[in-house]
Amino acid sequence: MPQSHATPQAPKRYLYGPGPTQVEDSVYQAMANNVVGHLDPYFFEVAGDVRARLRTVFGTSNELTLAISGTGSSGMETAVANFVEPGVKFGVLSAGFFAERIAEMARRHGATVVKADKPWGETFSDAEAREFILRERPQLVAFVHAETSTGALQSPAAICQAAHEVGALVIADTVTSLGAVPVEVDLHGIDIAYSCSQKGLSCPPGLSPVTVSPRAVERLDARKTPCDVWYLDLKLLRDYYDGKKYHHTASATLMYALREALRLVDVEGAKIRWNRHRESHEYFVRKIEAMGLGMHVAPGHRIPNLNTVRTPEGVDDAKVRSRLLTEHGIEVAGGFGPLAGKIFRIGLMGPLATRDGVDFFLNAFQQCLK
Amino acid sequence: MPQSHATPQAPKRYLYGPGPTQVEDSVYQAMANNVVGHLDPYFFEVAGDVRARLRTVFGTSNELTLAISGTGSSGMETAVANFVEPGVKFGVLSAGFFAERIAEMARRHGATVVKADKPWGETFSDAEAREFILRERPQLVAFVHAETSTGALQSPAAICQAAHEVGALVIADTVTSLGAVPVEVDLHGIDIAYSCSQKGLSCPPGLSPVTVSPRAVERLDARKTPCDVWYLDLKLLRDYYDGKKYHHTASATLMYALREALRLVDVEGAKIRWNRHRESHEYFVRKIEAMGLGMHVAPGHRIPNLNTVRTPEGVDDAKVRSRLLTEHGIEVAGGFGPLAGKIFRIGLMGPLATRDGVDFFLNAFQQCLK
Repeated sequence: MPQSHATPQAPKRYLYGPGPTQVEDSVYQAMANNVVGHLDPYFFEVAGDVRARLRTVFGTSNELTLAISGTGSSGMETAVANFVEPGVKFGVLSAGFFAERIAEMARRHGATVVKADKPWGETFSDAEAREFILRERPQLVAFVHAETSTGALQSPAAICQAAHEVGALVIADTVTSLGAVPVEVDLHGIDIAYSCSQKGLSCPPGLSPVTVSPRAVERLDARKTPCDVWYLDLKLLRDYYDGKKYHHTASATLMYALREALRLVDVEGAKIRWNRHRESHEYFVRKIEAMGLGMHVAPGHRIPNLNTVRTPEGVDDAKVRSRLLTEHGIEVAGGFGPLAGKIFRIGLMGPLATRDGVDFFLNAFQQCLK
Repeated sequence: MPQSHATPQAPKRYLYGPGPTQVEDSVYQAMANNVVGHLDPYFFEVAGDVRARLRTVFGTSNELTLAISGTGSSGMETAVANFVEPGVKFGVLSAGFFAERIAEMARRHGATVVKADKPWGETFSDAEAREFILRERPQLVAFVHAETSTGALQSPAAICQAAHEVGALVIADTVTSLGAVPVEVDLHGIDIAYSCSQKGLSCPPGLSPVTVSPRAVERLDARKTPCDVWYLDLKLLRDYYDGKKYHHTASATLMYALREALRLVDVEGAKIRWNRHRESHEYFVRKIEAMGLGMHVAPGHRIPNLNTVRTPEGVDDAKVRSRLLTEHGIEVAGGFGPLAGKIFRIGLMGPLATRDGVDFFLNAFQQCLK
């Protein structure tokens, strides 16, 4: 039988990994507000505020914008499961782990998956994306805006244009980009975008923002079969958040936290926030290169808030990460798959995306690389 | 664009509904601990403690016991999706809304569903359960231990025995029972049980405890197709929580809260806690009957922590509930489906399951019934 000693305090951590990310005190405070029921008028007020603020941060006027009661991966599965019917042709632009995950989910839900593949860390040029989509003519096209496994940022414009030419809906993974990098759902014509509550929004994990275009809603309403996942069924969730029909017991706690995190984004202003992340990134890269280290992704294709630094020759990245954690309370991540041992994945997100945040990290990093 | 005023405080609520339920201060405090990464050794320590304590409260030694990163309904879908393969015969003992939900999920995942039906508020006798199972010989049998929509408590023993005689696995919904009513997974031979973090455990919503017997694990490992829901795939989740392979970014926040809530259960002692809920229920029923009101469920079949009281003749239950909320900050629920307008659903769970908690509620209830 487990011991029943009082719950200890969590060790202080500086979250410089790809996620979860550092959380502002006011978000923790909002989260500790007392729980109200999922049918309480106050809950709908909070959820409505979250939905409105999510539209702003997604750059969309999509009515069907809400937060799924699960982590970012549940948002990915929501996007896939609601728009796949058995036999649908599903195109994936894949140059990393999370694109492969989308493909895996699509297969499980009965899609016929076709992929364009590039090495991990590269992105698709406009011509490459266009050629793949026009050749394959899938009914759905999925891409990862900010590929967390590699540090590469994929431009959405050409993908969306080609997809719409062949009548396909576009699914965009904005898990690592939302709140830190411009995500322009309406401008680019992204049909379904999903993200997470942590990373660029710097809230604790547990919710997954999702937005769906009117064009995609039409496709959803025309489905011949119900979504195979009841928990993630967007039609049921739409009715629930519109106050029409009970679905599940959403977590007021997490909704309070997300609302406060989104309020902080609004207070700062999205553009100022994006610039802050970009400037911190540029400062970081200059310093890293001055240290004689190299970035994994080519200039112009890097995710500003997730920096992938090549592991120097002869350095054991696991040892460095372990020292960072135990000696400095700093979390960063390593690479995996084809990038295992080859890169550090260093997040500069939310409150840590400042020059001071970069200096604090690099000081510890330099010590641990020795 | 939404206003960016500071986040207001949530209104104080006394959660006497079927859930979410009242949360102890120490759980809120634990939850506000700083987030650590989902691969941090401290996270695994916390998750390991949660897993151990869940085994205690479920009454099981099942190795595969963990918390799904979603609400109780995601636990239900985990239980269904991982054990249904297309064409499987799936038996449901249905006398309420949540049993119907299980059946709906099973259909979506490709099962052939057979049901035994009874009016909402009744339970299945040992003979009825046995007759259904031996006649239909399904590969899976699901029942709802505590049917939140009706207030009826279903005895598990005969169901489990008959199911095992025909080689079926038993799925038990313990969403409303766990932590407040004895749930004896190993004693009864329940193969898959799921619950939620709120209700009897009195933690904020957002996680769903699940436990799986070795017999069910064998069935899981012998699946010919992968689970159709990647997010809820128990094989992947097992590897994740065993530290073998990354799956998703679990919420340290919710895990801290659940650990503290489970610690409080351990400190009180499960048996004492069950007795407290039973005694508060008996006190409540005596008082309710003294007020000239009636219970919906027959004596001996009532869920102690979820009391369904018949709406008195000529009373508009919605008005009473609205007055309770606005005048007293008290949340209770009404009935739905065939019980719409006919009952109040009154939870006495966690910190509110005391004589004082009953008196506080009934005082307000009496005023609002006038």
